Amino acid sequence: MRLRDVGEFGLIDQIEALAASVTGDRVKLGIGDDAALVRVRAGEELVVTSDAHVESVHFRWRDESARRIGRQALVANLSDLAAMGARPAGFTLSLAAPPRLEVRVVLDMVRGMLSAGVPLLGGNVTRARETSLHITALGTVRSGRALLRSAARPGDRLLVTGQLGAAAWARRRAAGSGRLRHRSEARIEAGRALAGLPGRGACIDVSDGFVADLQHLLDASGVGAHVDFSALPRPRGFSASCRRLRVRPERLLLAGGEDYELLFTVRPQAASATRLAARLGVPVTELGTISAGPPRIHWRSLPGGIEPKLAGSGWRHF
Amino acid sequence: MRLRDVGEFGLIDQIEALAASVTGDRVKLGIGDDAALVRVRAGEELVVTSDAHVESVHFRWRDESARRIGRQALVANLSDLAAMGARPAGFTLSLAAPPRLEVRVVLDMVRGMLSAGVPLLGGNVTRARETSLHITALGTVRSGRALLRSAARPGDRLLVTGQLGAAAWARRRAAGSGRLRHRSEARIEAGRALAGLPGRGACIDVSDGFVADLQHLLDASGVGAHVDFSALPRPRGFSASCRRLRVRPERLLLAGGEDYELLFTVRPQAASATRLAARLGVPVTELGTISAGPPRIHWRSLPGGIEPKLAGSGWRHF
Repeated sequence: MRLRDVGEFGLIDQIEALAASVTGDRVKLGIGDDAALVRVRAGEELVVTSDAHVESVHFRWRDESARRIGRQALVANLSDLAAMGARPAGFTLSLAAPPRLEVRVVLDMVRGMLSAGVPLLGGNVTRARETSLHITALGTVRSGRALLRSAARPGDRLLVTGQLGAAAWARRRAAGSGRLRHRSEARIEAGRALAGLPGRGACIDVSDGFVADLQHLLDASGVGAHVDFSALPRPRGFSASCRRLRVRPERLLLAGGEDYELLFTVRPQAASATRLAARLGVPVTELGTISAGPPRIHWRSLPGGIEPKLAGSGWRHF
Repeated sequence: MRLRDVGEFGLIDQIEALAASVTGDRVKLGIGDDAALVRVRAGEELVVTSDAHVESVHFRWRDESARRIGRQALVANLSDLAAMGARPAGFTLSLAAPPRLEVRVVLDMVRGMLSAGVPLLGGNVTRARETSLHITALGTVRSGRALLRSAARPGDRLLVTGQLGAAAWARRRAAGSGRLRHRSEARIEAGRALAGLPGRGACIDVSDGFVADLQHLLDASGVGAHVDFSALPRPRGFSASCRRLRVRPERLLLAGGEDYELLFTVRPQAASATRLAARLGVPVTELGTISAGPPRIHWRSLPGGIEPKLAGSGWRHF
């Protein structure tokens, strides 16, 4: 069964049936009207973010399942909510797809999204030459509590959750050889805990790549950073595997992208990395310090032979 | 200057500079962080809707200006807010475009959106084979006041704002001959006035076409409608012009789409069409009545020779 066989509204009906399995206490009205209705409360701010997953740019059908494609498209958005310290309330999906696409594939992508447990509020489906998923996620945060990229100060300590390079590593290993299974998760609970932490500074999620996202944080805060390369947390067996794959591990660590870890700063007197890890419920690694001066990364123990542009590359869309 | 010359972040910087010209009292944090922050108030509900405009499906570069393409893409979303009786708070844009696209063209589309006076909150830009604009609009409505498709009851009177077929007519006239200039407007103020009206019933915006959208309303409410074809409000000179263009006027009236008028019902005892027009600030025409029974349209004075499927066609995406 292809999209052209069921038509726009036939497809929407099937998506609506799936979406009914995930509800939220904020959702007053979901799919089926001109717009969705979300309850809002006093003392809260609404957090809104949009992101896209495009065929042959962000995913390839032969690398991974439709379910994973859908899930990762949503995770990219939820990760932006996490980086603001927000609680997800729901999301909308604007789907563009060629008429020849199997309905089953679309529904599997939607199932992948819904597996994150966040309600689908509505959206749109339209014809296009290639498949793309445009998601807007909504969340809420207590007024004044949102984590900003611009809140780093000289003297802050720089930390990151989880590991870096894991998503790019998994993608390299799966390329051509079969199905990509690595699942990045959005650090929702960690972000919410961080938003309530005394001595919190700035926060961003590592979506484009460590260097690119750190650079965004530095630009927004108008500060520099001293970073110890050897401290960057990497998955077990990473370096040896990279050698076998003939890829420089530094490339994946610095510019891998899609890890969706939280890169954040805390004031000097804030809790230790160990205590932060307990509080946030995830591994936390200390990487360096924030300094006054132009928004540049000053590396310690960076291996030789790394191309200078890796320090400013990350993911370029055009 | 093309997208590939300025890159993703160069483009975002230029969009951000434009967006700064339109602010809103609800926007606490706009473009530049992981997500935007919107102030919400007690006693209100958040209204959220997504829609897409795709190259060669919804627009063609040779038919209209980039500015109009952008504006109409946003109007489609604002019209959904209008049909809920909501006040716009802002919108996000997820833009997909080929690297060869001129930066000027993208900025003109954004200018077109901003000309509606609603703040751009953030979004995403990504590479793709064809250009598409995926917009999510946010608005607010007083709790319990939202206009629903499902609120029509037998005995209700059926009415519509403005004129039908005007957008499709303008598109036909402009096809090949030059630049399309017709501007549809979202009926925001009329929708807000209707939401506060005693005796209001259901409401939907005419985006896909009169018949298709009336059918959505009937389906959602579980009612039928008796409609007087001769009452459908059409632009001056419409029928004669259609004859010259060799297109049946009935086709544009019934399935034209993109008019963004409000199609709504009121209880029998509600104000007259004339008084409603004064209250809503737009022309209002009475078309018929809502009846008990299956969700079907019963036509009065429908001209002969109209294909039966026109009564169930509208815009098919796949």
